[in-house]
Amino acid sequence: MKFTSALASALLLSVSFLQAQTDPGIMRLQEFAYPAKRKILNIPNVNGLQVLKCDFHMHTVFTDGHVWPNVRVQEAWREGLDAISYTEHMEYNPHSKDVKVDHNRSHDLAVELAKENNIVLVKGTEVTRKTPPGHFNALFIQDASTLVENNDSALDQEAIDKVAAQKAFIFWNHPGWKAATIEGSYEWIDFVEKMYQEKKLHGIEVVNGLGFHKKALDWALDRNLTVIGNTDIHNLIAHDYNIGQEGVHRTMTLIMSKDRSAAGIRDALEAGRTVAWSSKYLFGKEENVRNLMNACVSISAPYHEKTNKKAGSTTKYYEISNNSDLYFELELKSGNGTKRIVLYPESKQILTAEAGQSKLTYEVVSTFIRSDKHLMFDVKL
Amino acid sequence: MKFTSALASALLLSVSFLQAQTDPGIMRLQEFAYPAKRKILNIPNVNGLQVLKCDFHMHTVFTDGHVWPNVRVQEAWREGLDAISYTEHMEYNPHSKDVKVDHNRSHDLAVELAKENNIVLVKGTEVTRKTPPGHFNALFIQDASTLVENNDSALDQEAIDKVAAQKAFIFWNHPGWKAATIEGSYEWIDFVEKMYQEKKLHGIEVVNGLGFHKKALDWALDRNLTVIGNTDIHNLIAHDYNIGQEGVHRTMTLIMSKDRSAAGIRDALEAGRTVAWSSKYLFGKEENVRNLMNACVSISAPYHEKTNKKAGSTTKYYEISNNSDLYFELELKSGNGTKRIVLYPESKQILTAEAGQSKLTYEVVSTFIRSDKHLMFDVKL
Amino acid sequence: MKFTSALASALLLSVSFLQAQTDPGIMRLQEFAYPAKRKILNIPNVNGLQVLKCDFHMHTVFTDGHVWPNVRVQEAWREGLDAISYTEHMEYNPHSKDVKVDHNRSHDLAVELAKENNIVLVKGTEVTRKTPPGHFNALFIQDASTLVENNDSALDQEAIDKVAAQKAFIFWNHPGWKAATIEGSYEWIDFVEKMYQEKKLHGIEVVNGLGFHKKALDWALDRNLTVIGNTDIHNLIAHDYNIGQEGVHRTMTLIMSKDRSAAGIRDALEAGRTVAWSSKYLFGKEENVRNLMNACVSISAPYHEKTNKKAGSTTKYYEISNNSDLYFELELKSGNGTKRIVLYPESKQILTAEAGQSKLTYEVVSTFIRSDKHLMFDVKL
Amino acid sequence: MKFTSALASALLLSVSFLQAQTDPGIMRLQEFAYPAKRKILNIPNVNGLQVLKCDFHMHTVFTDGHVWPNVRVQEAWREGLDAISYTEHMEYNPHSKDVKVDHNRSHDLAVELAKENNIVLVKGTEVTRKTPPGHFNALFIQDASTLVENNDSALDQEAIDKVAAQKAFIFWNHPGWKAATIEGSYEWIDFVEKMYQEKKLHGIEVVNGLGFHKKALDWALDRNLTVIGNTDIHNLIAHDYNIGQEGVHRTMTLIMSKDRSAAGIRDALEAGRTVAWSSKYLFGKEENVRNLMNACVSISAPYHEKTNKKAGSTTKYYEISNNSDLYFELELKSGNGTKRIVLYPESKQILTAEAGQSKLTYEVVSTFIRSDKHLMFDVKL
Repeated sequence: MKFTSALASALLLSVSFLQAQTDPGIMRLQEFAYPAKRKILNIPNVNGLQVLKCDFHMHTVFTDGHVWPNVRVQEAWREGLDAISYTEHMEYNPHSKDVKVDHNRSHDLAVELAKENNIVLVKGTEVTRKTPPGHFNALFIQDASTLVENNDSALDQEAIDKVAAQKAFIFWNHPGWKAATIEGSYEWIDFVEKMYQEKKLHGIEVVNGLGFHKKALDWALDRNLTVIGNTDIHNLIAHDYNIGQEGVHRTMTLIMSKDRSAAGIRDALEAGRTVAWSSKYLFGKEENVRNLMNACVSISAPYHEKTNKKAGSTTKYYEISNNSDLYFELELKSGNGTKRIVLYPESKQILTAEAGQSKLTYEVVSTFIRSDKHLMFDVKL
Repeated sequence: MKFTSALASALLLSVSFLQAQTDPGIMRLQEFAYPAKRKILNIPNVNGLQVLKCDFHMHTVFTDGHVWPNVRVQEAWREGLDAISYTEHMEYNPHSKDVKVDHNRSHDLAVELAKENNIVLVKGTEVTRKTPPGHFNALFIQDASTLVENNDSALDQEAIDKVAAQKAFIFWNHPGWKAATIEGSYEWIDFVEKMYQEKKLHGIEVVNGLGFHKKALDWALDRNLTVIGNTDIHNLIAHDYNIGQEGVHRTMTLIMSKDRSAAGIRDALEAGRTVAWSSKYLFGKEENVRNLMNACVSISAPYHEKTNKKAGSTTKYYEISNNSDLYFELELKSGNGTKRIVLYPESKQILTAEAGQSKLTYEVVSTFIRSDKHLMFDVKL
Repeated sequence: MKFTSALASALLLSVSFLQAQTDPGIMRLQEFAYPAKRKILNIPNVNGLQVLKCDFHMHTVFTDGHVWPNVRVQEAWREGLDAISYTEHMEYNPHSKDVKVDHNRSHDLAVELAKENNIVLVKGTEVTRKTPPGHFNALFIQDASTLVENNDSALDQEAIDKVAAQKAFIFWNHPGWKAATIEGSYEWIDFVEKMYQEKKLHGIEVVNGLGFHKKALDWALDRNLTVIGNTDIHNLIAHDYNIGQEGVHRTMTLIMSKDRSAAGIRDALEAGRTVAWSSKYLFGKEENVRNLMNACVSISAPYHEKTNKKAGSTTKYYEISNNSDLYFELELKSGNGTKRIVLYPESKQILTAEAGQSKLTYEVVSTFIRSDKHLMFDVKL
Repeated sequence: MKFTSALASALLLSVSFLQAQTDPGIMRLQEFAYPAKRKILNIPNVNGLQVLKCDFHMHTVFTDGHVWPNVRVQEAWREGLDAISYTEHMEYNPHSKDVKVDHNRSHDLAVELAKENNIVLVKGTEVTRKTPPGHFNALFIQDASTLVENNDSALDQEAIDKVAAQKAFIFWNHPGWKAATIEGSYEWIDFVEKMYQEKKLHGIEVVNGLGFHKKALDWALDRNLTVIGNTDIHNLIAHDYNIGQEGVHRTMTLIMSKDRSAAGIRDALEAGRTVAWSSKYLFGKEENVRNLMNACVSISAPYHEKTNKKAGSTTKYYEISNNSDLYFELELKSGNGTKRIVLYPESKQILTAEAGQSKLTYEVVSTFIRSDKHLMFDVKL
């Protein structure tokens, strides 16, 4: 049946209960239909910048993914993303017996649909070299057909040079990948150091899917490279993530951008204004994570107080609010007050503090501003 | 990253909380991962026959679907299906510019994966003729490459004859489809009558996705054709159905079979031992629906009674149990007792009845044993 | 075990996975604990006024409810309410054999807990006269112990006069209640007319729990009485409402208030700045419903257009956003564009419109601005 | 409004969408109503014994709980429990200013409702002595009004003797409670040893709510005392447990009983045929946990095999099924096969094993057969 477009199907409306169409011959049983909607992922502006939700690493049947390109737009639309990029492997085409190899094709097939769905589509590719040096994503390229298709190690440098020549924004993907599964460790290698020296490396994917590459975060911070988090989705988002459960989201890069455009995104990427978001965790430069948290979390004026005459102390009551879909988990490090606070998405907690203090200092254990360091966050009283 | 097989990814385990791998360099953030599991759809045996959950109508990128064939096996595995069939269009190949046309290919690519996942794979095809006469599915074919690819009306008969020559089990798909969307009505046409007379039509798809083709149910019942329900999925099941919500399932055909095999399925299809299940509803021959309900619903002995002295009456209390993942909604038609009972999946309700009766008779409004008739169900007291 | 206060228990934190306490002798198994949080019900300010979420009708064990008073504060805290009122029956005390009758007691027992939880507690009572005239709630009373306890019809007038003498804000509860269940119709009776004439009736509870009293809405609108919606909860909110499911909320009155205080609430009630919210529906004065919807729903600039050369027409694409936890369902009444739009909480839809129009007009079928009239809503293009 | 009984409210049916009553004056908005049902907690019989789901520790407003007694029956009915016991404190009555102290009252008020709901009601009490010795529950008592109300330490022995004299089944509650929160450790004290010697101690509550008292499990196993798990609920189950989420259940004792009766329960308690179930974990005597798991988990015949010619090895495929609502997490300890298996409720997993083995041995890390020991479970191939 239906040869409907992806858009039409995305727009299919869920109606409660048995609803007869005009034609009495067909009865619609809509109770179990997906309630088609574009979720709003709430994150307030950060110092006047919009926070764009982006995933810059994904595959389709045109390389080793399991879906037609339109599905990636559907997923992005439903899940509230602003921007995506198809990053097909240049050098790995396991479906080539069935699917004609065309490195630009998944992007091209999605262009119109992305426009209809108001998704910013950034043209990208994955440069899939053997490990080491491993894989790199190049965003904002013009033409993938002119790049290096051959996976011979002798061409590693040429492959990078060719995407660099297209003025791409280049980041190193999942640096610990093979290391983790095969060799047991991973290092900042000479090849990458050379890229870095030659300004051909601009970021590192420190979170890939649900794997946090710890060393990679420190490398990015120490060299002022942009922190990136992506899904690297091959399968369906709904099959890899427990989508539909409250608060569950795919891995993504939060980009603090002047506007909702490809240009704004590039500008923010180059300026390093990103935070990676995966599971309950935020990863990034201290300043970025702090700014983001300041935009999301607020504390009320004290609304109540209680005096313990015996102890000679007074407790003040505040509401601490998380006005975002992010998650923050705080542990008290100095001051007298609530010891542990979990700020679930779009919710508040009661915070109590002994009177006479100007602040409480919390460690935000759901953030990483280095592989071994969480953000310290002052709650001003 | 991961070039893992679909099976491996289906087997990926969900672990709560931050769990370090052996290599300290990568931290797994598994909280949001899909809890990989094969759901057991509970339906008790019906008179010694197993109830197999089957979907015999689906598409992949090899015609106009949006997924690689492996995804259909993943979906079936997760959702607890026993059998599926790839029914690609013979005559409609909108992706042919990118995907090499091969009518056997989606089936062939899935054979090994289906075996690994213990899914019965029935070889099938969709014979996509213009409407009228419309579309037909042929199951248990041997080779799709020998069939009619051309959609010229002059070849309608030949197309049917060729699948019939392969001894296929043939059913008419969504008879009201174009009628519903274009012409406004649909009829039992001469072409189909001829098929029926020549024993080349064996069933009708009375439910397609979430659309119940009412007339089609009556046609099937009047001619003793097998009642079928399928998804006709092109997109992802998770994007068309609100999968993940309690009790939500895709449309399917419940087959009462001697064993869990392709041969058992064919035997049951030919004998008409099927019930279509879509949303909260069951559709089928009265006998089949009744047998199925009898297997699922049971009534306890009275466990309590209460006498109203003023009224001179006694009320007895029973538990009515639904030991299945199906849904039954009952309205009292004769006798004195609980007026309306909703039997949610795997749950019980209290049923009260005035003493001195041998039964209550309910209309099961969540069943259709004709387009305008629900099953009448006696609760023996 | 634990003799902990309700507050402490409300603050109990959910931690993932098996977490050892300091004492190795006890292991905490927290996976199944309720994730304690105060939900933020997002509704933007309306013309500079805060939208407070209020429930002014509830019972505890002190009359015929099933919970201790603290539970009502817990529920309000978890569900994001701003204000509640205990409205125990003056004249109906079925637990009096076990619970000492004290008409102020449930309020008094909750005062401190409400303060700790930042819930505005409005002192109230239910004046439970036989039907007719039925039940009335009186808010902002000072002392319930001085009111009429006797349910003799001869005292109906005195009962009202006594609450009026306390300068209460009085509304008629569920006018169709007994009518619906017993007599079959309900009318604007003389007793109520007299109250109205004497300015002793200020509002009508047009939604009680999940029952919408249709005539009552028209009465309120025609006489400029304040529209109220309450739960009238006796049992647990979690047992009467499917709390925990996405988007599910208790029935409540949305109050557009200058500030978050009892005084602000009274002022708004007297000025009639309310909308009742139950299930997916909004009920109220046209102006109030319109202002509320204007605050919640916005339309983007056109972000894409598509020209159909054959038809000589151009379609423009917009995003329509629902920046609230309310629900809006729109059906197109004039103009050429998307015919049906469901704005789920915190989500967007694509709206398409033929170019050259300045607006589309929708009927918002999820609102009632009379018993038989939905809001008409212009989408400016 | 409604002065309906708890039963009637429990039976209130959920209907989708706006459904007009007979009286056009009231419209029912049922979408958000709780879908009233008695959940079936699926656990197969164990060696011919029924597995009853029991909670023998709970409070109401008659001592320090927050609900009227009827709510405990409602909760039990909804959650699929078979038996409960009100265990009010004899010596702690914080609501006595408002609620008349009557130690039998919560039980008595629930008797008829429990009968109507088919819940087995076991008469019990909590003997709340200072810690040490702490609290004890006594089940199957006849009359709580004759017991010791005074909490003076001098009467500790008398308090125990009095419940023992009623031939109660007595267990020690949450042995580590105060220790955990105050003193830091807890011991097998003389007072308890004396009870044990005198056959006045029959079980230990090793899980209380979501706290597993580790030492207490070993004490119970070493002395052949019955292992018990209870909620000790004071608040609402729905506010302490994340009820409504898939797989979430309250803490309870699973009792392997000859029949569904108070006598059967007592017999099983005395014979020690219990397993405590809390969160994802099972706690109990090795034999009981093993029998339970054997009843729930089954392995299919091999349905597929794959030969790796290079390695000269063959892999066989099996389905391992969890036909229960319990949860099992297995880690391979010996043999070559799937390393880690999570058996979610009512689901299957694929298990692969190298051919030529007769079994795989797993450690079931979601069970505790001592404080530091999990069940070892052989999967026969």
